[in-house]
Amino acid sequence: MTSSVLGQPVPQVTAQEKVLGRAQYSGDLKLPGMLHAKLLRSPHAHARIVSIDTAQAAALPGVKLVVTGQDVPERCWGVKHKQQHVLAVGEVRFAGEEVAAVVATSEDIARDALDLIRVEYEELPACLDPAASLNEGSPLVHPEGNLADEINISRGDVDAGFAAADIVHEETYKVHSQYPGYMEPMATLAAEDGNGRLTVWTSTQTVFLARARFAEALDRPVSTIRVIQPTVGGGFGAKIVEERSSVIAAFLATKVDRPVRLCLSRLEDFQSGCFSVPCSIKLKMGMTRDGRITAKDVQILSECGAYAGLAPEVMLVTAMRSDNMQKIENVRSCARLVYTHTMPRGAFRGFGGTQMSFALNSHMSVMADRLGMDPIDLHRRNAIKTGDVSVHGWNIGSCGLPECLDQVSTAIRWTEKRSRAKDIGPLRRGVGMAAAMHVSGNRTMGNWDGSTVVLKVNEDGRAQILTAESDIGQGANTMLAQICAEELGIPLSHITVSAPDTDSAPYNLGSLASRVTINAGNAMVKAARQARTQILEAAVQKLECDASDLTIADGAVQSTSNSNLFAPLPEICRFHIFRHGGDGIHVRVTHDPDTKMMDADHYGNIAPAYSFAAQAVEVEVDTETGRVRLVETYLSDDCGRAINPLSVHGQSNGAAVQAVGWTLYENLQFEDGQVMNGNLADYTMATADALPTLNSDIVESFEPNGPLGAKGASETAILPGAPAIANAIYDAIGVRITELPITPEKILAGLAAREQAHA
Amino acid sequence: MTSSVLGQPVPQVTAQEKVLGRAQYSGDLKLPGMLHAKLLRSPHAHARIVSIDTAQAAALPGVKLVVTGQDVPERCWGVKHKQQHVLAVGEVRFAGEEVAAVVATSEDIARDALDLIRVEYEELPACLDPAASLNEGSPLVHPEGNLADEINISRGDVDAGFAAADIVHEETYKVHSQYPGYMEPMATLAAEDGNGRLTVWTSTQTVFLARARFAEALDRPVSTIRVIQPTVGGGFGAKIVEERSSVIAAFLATKVDRPVRLCLSRLEDFQSGCFSVPCSIKLKMGMTRDGRITAKDVQILSECGAYAGLAPEVMLVTAMRSDNMQKIENVRSCARLVYTHTMPRGAFRGFGGTQMSFALNSHMSVMADRLGMDPIDLHRRNAIKTGDVSVHGWNIGSCGLPECLDQVSTAIRWTEKRSRAKDIGPLRRGVGMAAAMHVSGNRTMGNWDGSTVVLKVNEDGRAQILTAESDIGQGANTMLAQICAEELGIPLSHITVSAPDTDSAPYNLGSLASRVTINAGNAMVKAARQARTQILEAAVQKLECDASDLTIADGAVQSTSNSNLFAPLPEICRFHIFRHGGDGIHVRVTHDPDTKMMDADHYGNIAPAYSFAAQAVEVEVDTETGRVRLVETYLSDDCGRAINPLSVHGQSNGAAVQAVGWTLYENLQFEDGQVMNGNLADYTMATADALPTLNSDIVESFEPNGPLGAKGASETAILPGAPAIANAIYDAIGVRITELPITPEKILAGLAAREQAHA
Repeated sequence: MTSSVLGQPVPQVTAQEKVLGRAQYSGDLKLPGMLHAKLLRSPHAHARIVSIDTAQAAALPGVKLVVTGQDVPERCWGVKHKQQHVLAVGEVRFAGEEVAAVVATSEDIARDALDLIRVEYEELPACLDPAASLNEGSPLVHPEGNLADEINISRGDVDAGFAAADIVHEETYKVHSQYPGYMEPMATLAAEDGNGRLTVWTSTQTVFLARARFAEALDRPVSTIRVIQPTVGGGFGAKIVEERSSVIAAFLATKVDRPVRLCLSRLEDFQSGCFSVPCSIKLKMGMTRDGRITAKDVQILSECGAYAGLAPEVMLVTAMRSDNMQKIENVRSCARLVYTHTMPRGAFRGFGGTQMSFALNSHMSVMADRLGMDPIDLHRRNAIKTGDVSVHGWNIGSCGLPECLDQVSTAIRWTEKRSRAKDIGPLRRGVGMAAAMHVSGNRTMGNWDGSTVVLKVNEDGRAQILTAESDIGQGANTMLAQICAEELGIPLSHITVSAPDTDSAPYNLGSLASRVTINAGNAMVKAARQARTQILEAAVQKLECDASDLTIADGAVQSTSNSNLFAPLPEICRFHIFRHGGDGIHVRVTHDPDTKMMDADHYGNIAPAYSFAAQAVEVEVDTETGRVRLVETYLSDDCGRAINPLSVHGQSNGAAVQAVGWTLYENLQFEDGQVMNGNLADYTMATADALPTLNSDIVESFEPNGPLGAKGASETAILPGAPAIANAIYDAIGVRITELPITPEKILAGLAAREQAHA
Repeated sequence: MTSSVLGQPVPQVTAQEKVLGRAQYSGDLKLPGMLHAKLLRSPHAHARIVSIDTAQAAALPGVKLVVTGQDVPERCWGVKHKQQHVLAVGEVRFAGEEVAAVVATSEDIARDALDLIRVEYEELPACLDPAASLNEGSPLVHPEGNLADEINISRGDVDAGFAAADIVHEETYKVHSQYPGYMEPMATLAAEDGNGRLTVWTSTQTVFLARARFAEALDRPVSTIRVIQPTVGGGFGAKIVEERSSVIAAFLATKVDRPVRLCLSRLEDFQSGCFSVPCSIKLKMGMTRDGRITAKDVQILSECGAYAGLAPEVMLVTAMRSDNMQKIENVRSCARLVYTHTMPRGAFRGFGGTQMSFALNSHMSVMADRLGMDPIDLHRRNAIKTGDVSVHGWNIGSCGLPECLDQVSTAIRWTEKRSRAKDIGPLRRGVGMAAAMHVSGNRTMGNWDGSTVVLKVNEDGRAQILTAESDIGQGANTMLAQICAEELGIPLSHITVSAPDTDSAPYNLGSLASRVTINAGNAMVKAARQARTQILEAAVQKLECDASDLTIADGAVQSTSNSNLFAPLPEICRFHIFRHGGDGIHVRVTHDPDTKMMDADHYGNIAPAYSFAAQAVEVEVDTETGRVRLVETYLSDDCGRAINPLSVHGQSNGAAVQAVGWTLYENLQFEDGQVMNGNLADYTMATADALPTLNSDIVESFEPNGPLGAKGASETAILPGAPAIANAIYDAIGVRITELPITPEKILAGLAAREQAHA
């Protein structure tokens, strides 16, 4: 059967309302009597709050509430480290930390009132350099010390591995923090109703984890809180569980009898948003002459800023995930996470993978050069394969990495471009590539990575899907609707996916760890099949026939052998209710993948599937200005099966752009711990004029654990961008850049150093 | 185990927000950009619409839309008779019918614009007298004639029954139409979103039947519509499936790209609201000397107004329901429903039962007198009993009627008061009583009367109930929460019942036919038990123990034999998710009672249970003014088991008041088919000063088909009021009033006639 929906490049089911400008984001919502909140933030990276005088602010006409750290619950909230109050209490730990909140009848009044709050700070020495944070005498971010987390993993015999190596290469790489750069800065509307229940509409990737966060921070039971997800304009990891402004808005709504709206400006979003975790990675690898990796030793220093959040989990990924991409035995990883007096860093698309991908792929390229091998061949030589179990216990059910490498090298004309002459004037071109892997799902949020989908089929034969696996723009709703349409035999336009709502949706973890397609998709397949079975059983009863050759097509239940056995789908769906023992078709299915929690030694098959990607790029380096221009990019993603090729290409291209921005343009600037370029003019994300045509391709490795063969396609594609560009720059000008971002200054400095060395 | 919740008079779970004035009724809702609608109504009972000029209205600044019958879907909607357009097309059939609608930026502008619409009517002769409506030459309401429905039922040998009778009594009773008199006139807010889906917040008793109505009237699939029920301020039957203003509001929202709010004024609600079905009942009964009913012959003429709606079903109830209260064999019922050019009448608390209850109980009292029997004894003599099958095939699983009769007669000191001297001055006192039965559920909305409840237990061990069995003030949510608390072993305050929402709730029929307690209650019992089992199974896994003596109490799962086996409920509920194969506790249960559709001859056990009630009243009649004052009232309701005695008393007392209003005070006045007293000053509902202390008692007959013994308690109590008062008046002054309402004029006329007869 050729599918009319599955695998087809259909437009997103959420597209119409977005194109019409009618999608309702959290900041668009209005409620009668709604008040507006604004936050006063610390100007200091580290200071003691000596006193706060809110009297003048509170007296301003229109101001309904002014609160400070004195008014918030005593209990602290956090992912694992419970260390944050709703507003700063006693001390501020980063410039931008929320010190007071004003609620007023308009945003303008609230903003004016902020100026009337008098805070007396006693400035304290700040810890701003992660490398120095563990030194004796360093200012402490938290009384228990600046070490937030430490991970040590060792497998095989690393020393023996290095002894067996023909070549050993060691280098230190540094990667910087990236702003998530979603279109929609954080916005929240919160209101407590007459029964004392709190409803929070907020820009989130996961309503249930948001509910848990609010419950913890506000010190009240989860059941007293309802979280609804309006349309979300991107998350990229920052809207999972670390976001603070929504917590503050929720708190404020409990203090006034009216709804409270809190929308961050872009600057505020920069000051408090969840950036990616910067780190330095000392990587040492040994290889045999023929390119087999014999040993790998990694030392990581990651910086989480003032609060740990998800950074320990991010660092764990940096420390070990890429090991699973290759068939290696001897690895050692020592990683330390340190606090600094800067804004908290944490989850970000790729979740720690981009950091190590830069180091590993740069390293592979260097070592390939030393061995006189093509780096693509070196990747192939070491690549893990379908059916392998990786060094950390991951079962590779499908691996399309070789095909990804094939696709991108062919597309960019790899061999031809690598071999051409380089000394051709001030503009030099080079090609580079990188390979990467990611999880599809991850059993680390607790010993469960399942997904539950509720499917209702209405009396008109159309369907409604209830889930809290949220669509944040990546296409989750379209994926679910396509699977449902395919399995149920109804048109895509007959399916509605409800907005996530903790009151009505089943418990789900939401959009993180590239888990939605593989987990919710599997639940959706099962739910649709159950509903289909129910419909066909009702049809058997209604038509008084045998079920064996009934099918659903063209809006009707019909026999494939007897054209008289026919009933419009709505008729059967009505009959499903209106009969003895009937009811509405309303199926609930949970799919929990057959994975394992990592053990204490971080060993275990944590995900039902693993995605792979490769990227090849061509760059042009202006040796006079140091400017790097991306000439071509080819990205190939092994997503198992493309439920919707349009969505996969969208993810691939978006990820490629985000990687380009991180590598070449985005550069967060601090002064005394304060963000100096917190706006989209000075924090230069890649715009259309900086980009060539984005090319992406898809490898379908047909994952056996995936829904109809699919696995995740949201994050893998961001991983290879930075090292592919760095490798291409090296190919072009022979300068190896090991610290991101790759600025013209670094290019010129590299060229100068190279000339000096040659001189 | 003594329950701390079940059977206890706990306040309604909806009380807090109502008492605080924070409950959100449909009319309270506001959406950004919301527009306001107003309706132009026909001033004529019957007219042809010659032309409508909307140009001036449309040109008024602020007016966004003016529509007439020319703009509405061609398809007609209706319950069984599809005869209504969204707005009148070509012809108006009652004064008040909606002819045009204006949508504007404010209610005032919309109202002003109505005045600018020029409608040219050609007035036509109207059919206003139901008794003449079938006469040749009567103006026709619909081209197919004025007979809307006809029912003929005959059981046993009625003629032989009359032949065997020692006495036969025949009388014609007339009952009038009652305004439902809810606190909240109809209000609707409707908005179409960017995906073309229409959301309707409306005051309804049943969101799913409302959705079906909108879909039919707007000629679009049900799945493109979402209906949400805000807090509802009473329905009394009028907000089931006949309501028109919500249809118009829904339609208007599809014609403008902004939300539309339509709230009826009290006058409009009178003009278009769903009143009860007036009828005349010719009742003939035969009895043996010892009071056994040998035959019964009924002829009914009911008036449905301009459109049939649910009136055919109402008339069916009038025609046969009360037969089932008594052990009789020979009955004949001929009922005809006629159209008139008046507003549509239909469902109303008691659903046709009040009409016949007045006739039957008046009759029983008269015949008891003739036989020299106490009417209470006569009722007892004929009462159906637990285990009986009634003449129409109803299985009486529980019958507390004898106990009801005992309670009310004892409470009012029946024997003592009946025997006292009457001639004691101008103020005469008398006592009267009546008995009644009602269904609990009814398999006539389609061959299904089931109910589905979804129960989620959150990670904090608290529960959320999703259902569309709506609370319209009667206490459905409290009933469900009490059953859930009881069965799950958690406090009532830990349970939230979601507002009905067709997108997220399971398919349900809603609040009608006193079906919610018995059907949703049964589903709730099962759902709570399933959830409890799931919790205990998870506890067994977590505590590694045997399940047999685990229980849930005091917020924990604990062993009754081993105090070490103990875990807080939240811990187990979290564990239910976070484990291999886990998920949130989310149970869905449907209960469909073991009942039958009536056959073509109206025979069959349509309800899982039947409720009974009796009422005794004492009145004081001022023989000089004709004024009747209620001195005492005792009402006893056999609701099987009172899940919440406070709710049952609330229903009994509310019903008693509504019956008093109907009997003595409320009196709808027409002039040329126009309502002349459509306001609460002139349409005099019973107020506190007109009422004595309301006394009610409960009989618990423990219905085997009911949830924990319960059956419906919403409607039965309205049935005996009118005849009890009429019988008491007769006891006081010897005047038999057979036509409602019992006005002072009728009393004085009766007294005069009596004096003349005695003279």
